Amino acid sequence: MERLLKHIESPEDLKRLTLDELPKLAQELREFIIDIVSTKEGHLGASLGVVELTIALHYVFNAPYDKLIWDVGHQAYGHKILTGRKEIFDTNRQLGGISGFPKRSESEYDDFGTGHSSTAISAILGMSMASKLKNDFNRQHIAVVGDASIASGMAFEGLNHLGVTDVNTLIVLNDNAIGIDPSVGALKKYLTNVKAGTAKDENIFECLNLNYTGPIDGHDLKALVAELERLKHVDGPKLLHIITTKGKGLKQAEEDQVVYHAPGKFDKTTGERLKKSGQAQPPKYQDVFGHTIVELAQKNEKIVGITPAMPSGSSLKFMMEEIPERAFDVGIAEQHAVTLAAGMATQGLIPFCNIYSTFLQRAYDQVIHDVALQKLPVIFCLDRAGLVGQDGPTHHGVFDMAFLRCIPNLTVFAPMNEMELRNIMYTAQLGLDGPIAIRYPRGRGANIDWKNDFEPIEIGTGRCLKKGFKIAILTVGDIGNGISELIAGFSAPEALGHYDMRFVKPLDRNLLRSIFNSYEHIITVEDGTKMGGFGSAVLEFGNEEGLTKPVKIFGVPDQFIDHGEPSETHKMAGIDFDTIHSYIQSTLTQCD
Amino acid sequence: MERLLKHIESPEDLKRLTLDELPKLAQELREFIIDIVSTKEGHLGASLGVVELTIALHYVFNAPYDKLIWDVGHQAYGHKILTGRKEIFDTNRQLGGISGFPKRSESEYDDFGTGHSSTAISAILGMSMASKLKNDFNRQHIAVVGDASIASGMAFEGLNHLGVTDVNTLIVLNDNAIGIDPSVGALKKYLTNVKAGTAKDENIFECLNLNYTGPIDGHDLKALVAELERLKHVDGPKLLHIITTKGKGLKQAEEDQVVYHAPGKFDKTTGERLKKSGQAQPPKYQDVFGHTIVELAQKNEKIVGITPAMPSGSSLKFMMEEIPERAFDVGIAEQHAVTLAAGMATQGLIPFCNIYSTFLQRAYDQVIHDVALQKLPVIFCLDRAGLVGQDGPTHHGVFDMAFLRCIPNLTVFAPMNEMELRNIMYTAQLGLDGPIAIRYPRGRGANIDWKNDFEPIEIGTGRCLKKGFKIAILTVGDIGNGISELIAGFSAPEALGHYDMRFVKPLDRNLLRSIFNSYEHIITVEDGTKMGGFGSAVLEFGNEEGLTKPVKIFGVPDQFIDHGEPSETHKMAGIDFDTIHSYIQSTLTQCD
Repeated sequence: MERLLKHIESPEDLKRLTLDELPKLAQELREFIIDIVSTKEGHLGASLGVVELTIALHYVFNAPYDKLIWDVGHQAYGHKILTGRKEIFDTNRQLGGISGFPKRSESEYDDFGTGHSSTAISAILGMSMASKLKNDFNRQHIAVVGDASIASGMAFEGLNHLGVTDVNTLIVLNDNAIGIDPSVGALKKYLTNVKAGTAKDENIFECLNLNYTGPIDGHDLKALVAELERLKHVDGPKLLHIITTKGKGLKQAEEDQVVYHAPGKFDKTTGERLKKSGQAQPPKYQDVFGHTIVELAQKNEKIVGITPAMPSGSSLKFMMEEIPERAFDVGIAEQHAVTLAAGMATQGLIPFCNIYSTFLQRAYDQVIHDVALQKLPVIFCLDRAGLVGQDGPTHHGVFDMAFLRCIPNLTVFAPMNEMELRNIMYTAQLGLDGPIAIRYPRGRGANIDWKNDFEPIEIGTGRCLKKGFKIAILTVGDIGNGISELIAGFSAPEALGHYDMRFVKPLDRNLLRSIFNSYEHIITVEDGTKMGGFGSAVLEFGNEEGLTKPVKIFGVPDQFIDHGEPSETHKMAGIDFDTIHSYIQSTLTQCD
Repeated sequence: MERLLKHIESPEDLKRLTLDELPKLAQELREFIIDIVSTKEGHLGASLGVVELTIALHYVFNAPYDKLIWDVGHQAYGHKILTGRKEIFDTNRQLGGISGFPKRSESEYDDFGTGHSSTAISAILGMSMASKLKNDFNRQHIAVVGDASIASGMAFEGLNHLGVTDVNTLIVLNDNAIGIDPSVGALKKYLTNVKAGTAKDENIFECLNLNYTGPIDGHDLKALVAELERLKHVDGPKLLHIITTKGKGLKQAEEDQVVYHAPGKFDKTTGERLKKSGQAQPPKYQDVFGHTIVELAQKNEKIVGITPAMPSGSSLKFMMEEIPERAFDVGIAEQHAVTLAAGMATQGLIPFCNIYSTFLQRAYDQVIHDVALQKLPVIFCLDRAGLVGQDGPTHHGVFDMAFLRCIPNLTVFAPMNEMELRNIMYTAQLGLDGPIAIRYPRGRGANIDWKNDFEPIEIGTGRCLKKGFKIAILTVGDIGNGISELIAGFSAPEALGHYDMRFVKPLDRNLLRSIFNSYEHIITVEDGTKMGGFGSAVLEFGNEEGLTKPVKIFGVPDQFIDHGEPSETHKMAGIDFDTIHSYIQSTLTQCD
């Protein structure tokens, strides 16, 4: 039987199919996605859920002339496959391969890069207003937004503006009742009522002056095509509410939507996930956080946990299961999460607010204005700090040290390993004079035996891991483990000192002073931006104290780092251990 | 006739009045506010509008046991006067005096500091959830939020969470159809329909699962007290919609609500604003921006202007008047403003996105993820950069250089004067390879004749204003004018060089190299944080190039700077000209 997908290199090819052929194409597209993602890994559920929508949009509209934005781009795999990237789809998320998200530089069909959520409405409105200014009234503008994303404040701001314009813009609300974890909040509840037919007459989107239709079955291709054709001829801003099932077409993915959001490798026929080798491994930092907060909260009833839509990713789910009355998923709402924590802290609670480093960028003002200015002891746990690998430049958490270090009253800590993470969490909940940000990376730590007894950490103190006399290597965070190994591999390691500085702020000035006075060269290593980061802080210290030693800063240079394996992204950034080893070797030679 | 206000030192005193006496108290309170603000300056309209609400809240509820948050705190003057700060109210916004916003460290009645808008719902929800966890079910929690603030994304995030809780929380929506400028957006339109009785049955707040009542007249004390008493006994989250008039009770303030938001000094009986002396003065940077964008946009039809709710403050109002089809007030929606601009830029428009430095903190992620990562040539005009004076620490724009400098692809420029601002705006609209942030302060520039012919500025180049040989003083931005004067005042200024570096990023490395090689000492001066700011960039440069000279960094130290006259805030930060003069003097002496 002839395969339809084989002949589709662009939306033009798609448009040659009859309406009756589209369901078959949907099946093939779904199989194609499952086929590749099962072996190459990546995001699965979201794209499976919008297979029919993707086909219908490209069947009805005229991309790239018409503008199409996929909010939180991990739902855009089908779009990529139908717009000329079928042959290279198996390079998804790999070094040099295509991005896991829409990316403007990758294709003219990717109208806007979307890694973070809830940006699509603002961006499509900007495009729509541009078309209007150019008197281009034929162009259509479409944004596909999930129900979890549309509940974020930024999306609301976009809708609030859209509703008072007269631009030709269609928002497709893809309602599957789940983001990465199940959706939460009053809007979700409302949408559930709409679907059940129990909402009252007026519609919340109509209150915002949008032309609302739906809900319709987002897996019914004929209904979708018919409704999109109709809406194409309706002027002004409109919202189409469609109901889909995340993971549609793969039984396990439909049944376990959280796990199959990004399931890793799996058997494409049975759907079973492939087990990793049974050898004992160090735990993920996420799980260290998740288990430790439960352990602490069981003894300290003032502790509460907050996550903006990442209970699984952050492992706060453990606390949500064990102590549900004190652990809260607030949805994709980083700004709210931070100020909610601030409000709780005013009443003597001890909030652990767990936010991915890259998403804390969404709540920067709240950290400054609501937390730090008021010296409220909120404990920020910044997950996925540093280079994150395959998710790429939209998700690298490399700016945090620079943007947090300038905030008064804030302590910034990077644990080198699991025990340090546990101990700083323990220390923070004992009571601090102000807020603290604890940044740790995605993935596994360094120790199989990680469940140590708690010990308090003195704020602002670094650790000498190894004394030396020629070159002092100063590290912050997990990257220090690789440096320790690297030092041990030198034939004459006695010249090398290694300091786990831990606190990006406040600096351990006594330790730094002694280092500047005891060594010939100083090297700093961090997985964040060189500009304004930890190394820069060390320079400021040296300058203030009038201590001048050559300082070499290893950090992320002034460029966005592409996606790839974590080790590859480190290499791109010039902070891989080979590069650092070579530098140390040549500096040692110069010393001799 | 005995004055009531005279005897009120706390809400306890207020509660002793009869309901019939309250309107008289309202009149006295209004007169008191007008009396002080007319001579001491400050925010007027917002507090006049909530005089009755303030009295009613303190009459019915039991602060500070009950929690009360005033969103955008400039409506809280009446609250301050009734809660023990009547006698010191005339120190409002002055050095050492009370803050113009609620401030936790100032009074136990100020439950949350609120300078930036739309934070109150999240904060009060945090407090409410804390009460619930403590099994304290008697405590009431109230947030007063204006209609302009509630349309911001952060407020929506708060409501979306609030609607699925069962906490005793009351949101008072103070609907006066205006923020600083008239409110905009679909929600405003909807609220207008509600007031006109033309909205349909279901209510947007009910859609979000809130118990809605209103709208009621917010100047009718009896109605207010009755409704608040009733709501006190209604469990769960609720929203009371009240209608008020901004500036209520002062004719001019009611009629010209934008000007009388913060009218400066005025005659308290006639309401007339007092004219400043007629002597010609340099223009405000705001007006230079406002007139220049009109001038440029008249010739370049791709230019658009965007402001999040600050058309008057930023002077984008000039373009909104002259070229309304290309100038947009999007309301208090900084996140949306930035990504809207990004969307427009993808279509070849040239967006000038004018945001106060302190409010750009609200859109940090959008600058990184939507603009810089995609290299979109959005032109950010960061108004009120640096220390802003009387508005104090919530509003100082001192973090921008540190938080922007670490972002790849972004140019950061600080014009020293009006002509430099005009020339960089001209240069930017000619077409850049990526985004630019142009930061300039609140207030007046340095030149009466400022309307120069445009000249392009070469990106990444500084200017030598004066050659010297001992000490090089490197400045960025308007603060350079004072440094020029200061240098001219030295008895032997020939040793002093002065460089207007202009670009915080990219640095003029050639110029810096020659400076490091030509002088004995280097001084950097900026009105932003020392940590990670311009001076820190100069240190990074010197370190990378192996150039070691003593560098003294004058910038804002690692603390929040209090409110006061601009000159006083500079002194607090140690970047006043006396301090800098003394340092130069003593360094010169050491050189000799």
